[in-house]
Amino acid sequence: MLGRMKTSYTFEITTESRSQLLAVTDQVREATRRSGVDEGFCVVYVPHTTAGVLINENADPDVAADVLSYFERLVPRSPSFRHAEGNSDAHIKAILTGSSVSIPIGKGEPALGTWQGVFFAEFDGPRSRRFTVTCIASGA
Amino acid sequence: MLGRMKTSYTFEITTESRSQLLAVTDQVREATRRSGVDEGFCVVYVPHTTAGVLINENADPDVAADVLSYFERLVPRSPSFRHAEGNSDAHIKAILTGSSVSIPIGKGEPALGTWQGVFFAEFDGPRSRRFTVTCIASGA
Amino acid sequence: MLGRMKTSYTFEITTESRSQLLAVTDQVREATRRSGVDEGFCVVYVPHTTAGVLINENADPDVAADVLSYFERLVPRSPSFRHAEGNSDAHIKAILTGSSVSIPIGKGEPALGTWQGVFFAEFDGPRSRRFTVTCIASGA
Repeated sequence: MLGRMKTSYTFEITTESRSQLLAVTDQVREATRRSGVDEGFCVVYVPHTTAGVLINENADPDVAADVLSYFERLVPRSPSFRHAEGNSDAHIKAILTGSSVSIPIGKGEPALGTWQGVFFAEFDGPRSRRFTVTCIASGA
Repeated sequence: MLGRMKTSYTFEITTESRSQLLAVTDQVREATRRSGVDEGFCVVYVPHTTAGVLINENADPDVAADVLSYFERLVPRSPSFRHAEGNSDAHIKAILTGSSVSIPIGKGEPALGTWQGVFFAEFDGPRSRRFTVTCIASGA
Repeated sequence: MLGRMKTSYTFEITTESRSQLLAVTDQVREATRRSGVDEGFCVVYVPHTTAGVLINENADPDVAADVLSYFERLVPRSPSFRHAEGNSDAHIKAILTGSSVSIPIGKGEPALGTWQGVFFAEFDGPRSRRFTVTCIASGA
């Protein structure tokens, strides 16, 4: 149909600690450019259940540190959880951040705000992980 | 326009307790297949204000139990809330989980991770509820 | 390509307090109508890092008041945060609400539920802010 180009790209990453916000903005830009989509948006999707994806400040690394320390306090590794793997806190943190973000594309680039970056949110690492970026052109 | 097929499907469900995570992965798969979309993604949308939708582990039911017990502790039914219906906690839980999830479609199937399932998140049941799955093909 | 119409619209708003839920449903409806999309969905996107977007009840304003007072208790302005601007709580609240919402479009209108409205969620105002609505037609 319409000779569509490939528009979904998968990236592999390795996280380095139990909780980590890993910047993946470069990969989102790369997928957007390769897709050829000029106007539309992309969906960044994480296929794991103890990791998520979020958008926030990419300038001061103290923000990421504050976010992670807050999440640790908000969802402690409680012994009252039933799930035998002992990582229910990571499942809950992944739910609170979410499995996907949608970002508009304008003039062939993700239309992130000035201070925005995209972060893979690891809550049960270190591990090998992956995520996909799917791009789609808008139009009536 | 291009003789488009029907691509949005509405499902009706009945929840059985005040808080419940109800698996709806089968309905998401069914809508994806019927849409005829081969590559793209789908949006699962909940049109209620005291229920949401989330993606998480579909293997061990203890995870869902841990998630629900955590949400109960995080957002108790506080008498200090002003909303006269007394269900402000359910509105807040719905905001924390969100009203929609976006899932890539590859080879005609939702590209969920190995352990991922889609769950309707009820926070003010039991009730009759509904949700929609809208599928869209990617492309430049 | 198909003579596509303009499908992404940016709106400017001004918030009036540090934390505020500002109804933007009218703007979402306006963008949807102008896009000419009949069936599909729209993405409402906030390009800031201390504000988000959410869907919840638009009928009783007490719900918005309860949501904001809950978020203040959940994420206090802690002196233990490291980020020097002193607004880490706003970054965290923006992550918990999210930067985008996706809403189905049916018969040329956003298919919001009966009680649903779309709200710009300000957590570090008052400020001049903006958001975009990108519409896309579904189809195989």
